Amino acid sequence: MGKECEICQLVADVNDPSSPRSSFRITEMAVSVAVLSSDQFFKGYTLVAYKEHVTELYHLPPDKRGEYCEEMIKIANALDKAFRPDKMNYELLGNQQAHMHWHLIPRYRDDGLWGLPVWVQRHEKKMLADKEYQELIGRINPHLSS
Amino acid sequence: MGKECEICQLVADVNDPSSPRSSFRITEMAVSVAVLSSDQFFKGYTLVAYKEHVTELYHLPPDKRGEYCEEMIKIANALDKAFRPDKMNYELLGNQQAHMHWHLIPRYRDDGLWGLPVWVQRHEKKMLADKEYQELIGRINPHLSS
Repeated sequence: MGKECEICQLVADVNDPSSPRSSFRITEMAVSVAVLSSDQFFKGYTLVAYKEHVTELYHLPPDKRGEYCEEMIKIANALDKAFRPDKMNYELLGNQQAHMHWHLIPRYRDDGLWGLPVWVQRHEKKMLADKEYQELIGRINPHLSS
Repeated sequence: MGKECEICQLVADVNDPSSPRSSFRITEMAVSVAVLSSDQFFKGYTLVAYKEHVTELYHLPPDKRGEYCEEMIKIANALDKAFRPDKMNYELLGNQQAHMHWHLIPRYRDDGLWGLPVWVQRHEKKMLADKEYQELIGRINPHLSS
């Protein structure tokens, strides 16, 4: 936990206006925070991190895990409305950082790996300019309340 | 849908006592059915398929998607109690079959891909004898009500 956990650090950074990472914050919710990935190879790729250091859904009581799943689904819905992908991939892995963080990966027929999990083949990270990240977040925001 | 959808077919088969696939059924729940994977390379690998042909969590109303996530988490918890993995991977992909089905993949430090998503490297499917599948299901069952 704390400094050793990259997800604890991510949650702290995106909620700290003095951190450069705060510009990737989409929204903070009751139990989680949604953060645009700096890698936009899959347009709209977003992480939804649980705010506390918890490593498995079944370590949470039913109300909290239900809240976390619902917050994740609301973000997935907003990504769908913003980018109109052909499919959504929802993945809670934790193989490198056990602290729970959903990978929401919008998939497109022309994404080069259509029909396969994104991890089958390495890809070059697609990094954007700051204003391009802000433009993407600006497209997601209007769909957060629906 | 129907015959063209392999997950619709799976749901039908596991609930049909005359189908050989029915022996892979762990349990049928309100909105989903849990089915042991025939590939047991990752011990306890289980699918949790939504019973109706629905392709995205956000296509369901909040009560139904909440129910589906909760049923999935109850199965994950039972797999954890039965096999004591070092981590659980939860994945709803739908890249080949869009009909929603969670992959619950128990991960172990000695599974050969520890620290990585399971899709990074192909593995030989580990097929078991019928009685070995039944032995695994027998270890999961006592933990379904907790």
